[in-house]
Amino acid sequence: MSLATPKPELDLSVFRFAERMGRLKASAIREILKVTEMPDVISFAGGLPAPELFPVTEFAQACQEVLAHDGPAALQYSVTEGYPPLRRWVCDYLARTSHIEANPDQILIISGSQQGLDLVGKVLLDPGDLVIIENPAYLGAIQAFDAYQADYLNVETDDEGMRTDDLVRVLGAARRKPKLLYLVPNFQNPSGITLSLQRRKAVISIAAEHGIPIFEDDPYGRLRYSHEPIPSLMSLAGGRGCVYMSTVSKIMAPGMRVAWLVIPERALYEKAVPAKQAADLHTSSFTQRVVYAFARAPGALEAHIAGMLPVYARRRDLMLRALERYMPPGCSWTRPDGGLFLWARVPESIDTQDLLAHASGKKVAFVPGAPFWVNRDVRNTMRLNFSNASDDMIVEGIRRLSDLVKAALK
Amino acid sequence: MSLATPKPELDLSVFRFAERMGRLKASAIREILKVTEMPDVISFAGGLPAPELFPVTEFAQACQEVLAHDGPAALQYSVTEGYPPLRRWVCDYLARTSHIEANPDQILIISGSQQGLDLVGKVLLDPGDLVIIENPAYLGAIQAFDAYQADYLNVETDDEGMRTDDLVRVLGAARRKPKLLYLVPNFQNPSGITLSLQRRKAVISIAAEHGIPIFEDDPYGRLRYSHEPIPSLMSLAGGRGCVYMSTVSKIMAPGMRVAWLVIPERALYEKAVPAKQAADLHTSSFTQRVVYAFARAPGALEAHIAGMLPVYARRRDLMLRALERYMPPGCSWTRPDGGLFLWARVPESIDTQDLLAHASGKKVAFVPGAPFWVNRDVRNTMRLNFSNASDDMIVEGIRRLSDLVKAALK
Repeated sequence: MSLATPKPELDLSVFRFAERMGRLKASAIREILKVTEMPDVISFAGGLPAPELFPVTEFAQACQEVLAHDGPAALQYSVTEGYPPLRRWVCDYLARTSHIEANPDQILIISGSQQGLDLVGKVLLDPGDLVIIENPAYLGAIQAFDAYQADYLNVETDDEGMRTDDLVRVLGAARRKPKLLYLVPNFQNPSGITLSLQRRKAVISIAAEHGIPIFEDDPYGRLRYSHEPIPSLMSLAGGRGCVYMSTVSKIMAPGMRVAWLVIPERALYEKAVPAKQAADLHTSSFTQRVVYAFARAPGALEAHIAGMLPVYARRRDLMLRALERYMPPGCSWTRPDGGLFLWARVPESIDTQDLLAHASGKKVAFVPGAPFWVNRDVRNTMRLNFSNASDDMIVEGIRRLSDLVKAALK
Repeated sequence: MSLATPKPELDLSVFRFAERMGRLKASAIREILKVTEMPDVISFAGGLPAPELFPVTEFAQACQEVLAHDGPAALQYSVTEGYPPLRRWVCDYLARTSHIEANPDQILIISGSQQGLDLVGKVLLDPGDLVIIENPAYLGAIQAFDAYQADYLNVETDDEGMRTDDLVRVLGAARRKPKLLYLVPNFQNPSGITLSLQRRKAVISIAAEHGIPIFEDDPYGRLRYSHEPIPSLMSLAGGRGCVYMSTVSKIMAPGMRVAWLVIPERALYEKAVPAKQAADLHTSSFTQRVVYAFARAPGALEAHIAGMLPVYARRRDLMLRALERYMPPGCSWTRPDGGLFLWARVPESIDTQDLLAHASGKKVAFVPGAPFWVNRDVRNTMRLNFSNASDDMIVEGIRRLSDLVKAALK
């Protein structure tokens, strides 16, 4: 069996960012980089989908179709809002899969979800503005909002996601009105937790009461392996006061850099378009058409997603079973219904940054949880990715990780 | 003969931006949109390369090659700095074509030049910071820097480009030290003018004396139809104090959204990378590889450029001859050695915005010059694009335009 793993390129960036923010120790960073760059390390550190599942053949066919039938337009400049047939398809797709009723004039095609975070930050945030986020929170959002010098109000989470009692407390204590409530309701990064239906309704009602727009970031929603889908906040709120974002990165391929914002509020949409234009004119005319050519083929995307789900579900289950089997007492972890990550907690005596600093001996990598915590110093958590490792690697990697934890407890 | 022109999609954006800036009259905007949206208008308003010259077949082959040999990596997340083989190719290309000596660690692959403008703005500019620009100036740069609330110092230009006597005057009068000197030295947008060698040397020396970094934006440099190339400011300065940008948009295709920044100063590069990461993680792994697959094929890119040059040269010559033939006395225009645009001046009694408001009757479109002027109210100029119209359309369009001007003089 081969335990070789592809070089986890973007794994490194999260550490570099955390280092700049002073959220990880410099010594830990050096060890982390050393571990993740080792050729035969088993890495649960990345956030990468499984490349062996990418629809390479379908994309090859889509490229040929686009260039054969629409080559000059696919290679030319195009409108900032996005390729109109793709925007229409996004509306159909969202209506079918997320009960979101949007029209193409509310869709802004963007160059990956990270650009959506940047544009919403650019349009809505001035230095010192407050953003409500989950604790722990998605690091890419913090990185984007940090560029606009946002401050954060962190709301505690439990197994049902953002705690609405804590949201009320946080809002009551806020010195001024927050500009945005940002959350990842499905299989959150880093925790893997899903916001319950009751909490979604409560979040909407609290945000509406305080007049705070909700930014619903939903990259993983289609990657559900157990239980029934829960309606999006956007659909529950009938679009009022919400911005919704999803992407092809997890259902097709991240290398295309195609995602979309749904912005029902006209005034906000009309600020987002010139912000996007100033940022990069428009997303690649070519990749937009390639994504559309794949997506519009009847049944193709759903068949592709249906093929991925059992693979990811099995990897999640393998990781959960391996954790049960190998981890020492005093450890706990989330049991996500979908997505790419789970979140583990080890006894408080262990700092997972120090743990990783010893991981090179065991050739296993993970992301220490500290940088995901906002305004809180929590040292004993870690994010584990289960989507980008083979079955054998998952079991062996968790065994190695458990050995590390056990050694640290001695 | 068909006079139909493709819908000039991005033509509209320049007007919308100018409107927001209060640089064009609202009534003129409505007329402009009406004219440019007419199906059988001859438009010199766009900034589009000729789509019939795009290397569609070469890109189709490149897509197949990339997906057949490197599919999973081409569809996966990748590093923010850009695809390493493409960064190495950019260095070879710049050394060969622009005498720029750079190493791959100084190259940042970006999602089109507009993103380079945005990132440099994000990294260098705080609200109220001063940017030195040419007058008239490239509107996309103003749009990008406006997002960071820059103020502008406008330096007058003549047939040799930025006037260095005026640069000295402007610097002497500046209340504080400017943060950046931005220019398009080759076949500038909108004027078509090229900065002379002597002026390049003077600009470098003045900027160095004042400690102001130069941002050299060179999208059109390879599209030279007459006279010899002039060394880039980057090469003349040996890289010191310069940031250089070029793109595949005009030598391959803009729809790919692939360009590059050359940033020799390490500290600046290390700020630009996280800014890029926060903005969109990285440029499409797929389009970067497709561009590289095309570019590395021996002789392919140079053959493609060699095929474009005579077409564009002929269109430029046709437009110049038609202007000579049809325009009334009192008009003048630039004679660009390359690029996509020329810049025309009509008698001062004519406001080109009003002229365009009457253009729907003649079914010809152009961009009124007013929005390109910074801190100056100049009404009698216009930008004419010669790259995106057939030979017949150019002659007929200039005839119609001249009729408009003549009618306005009566």
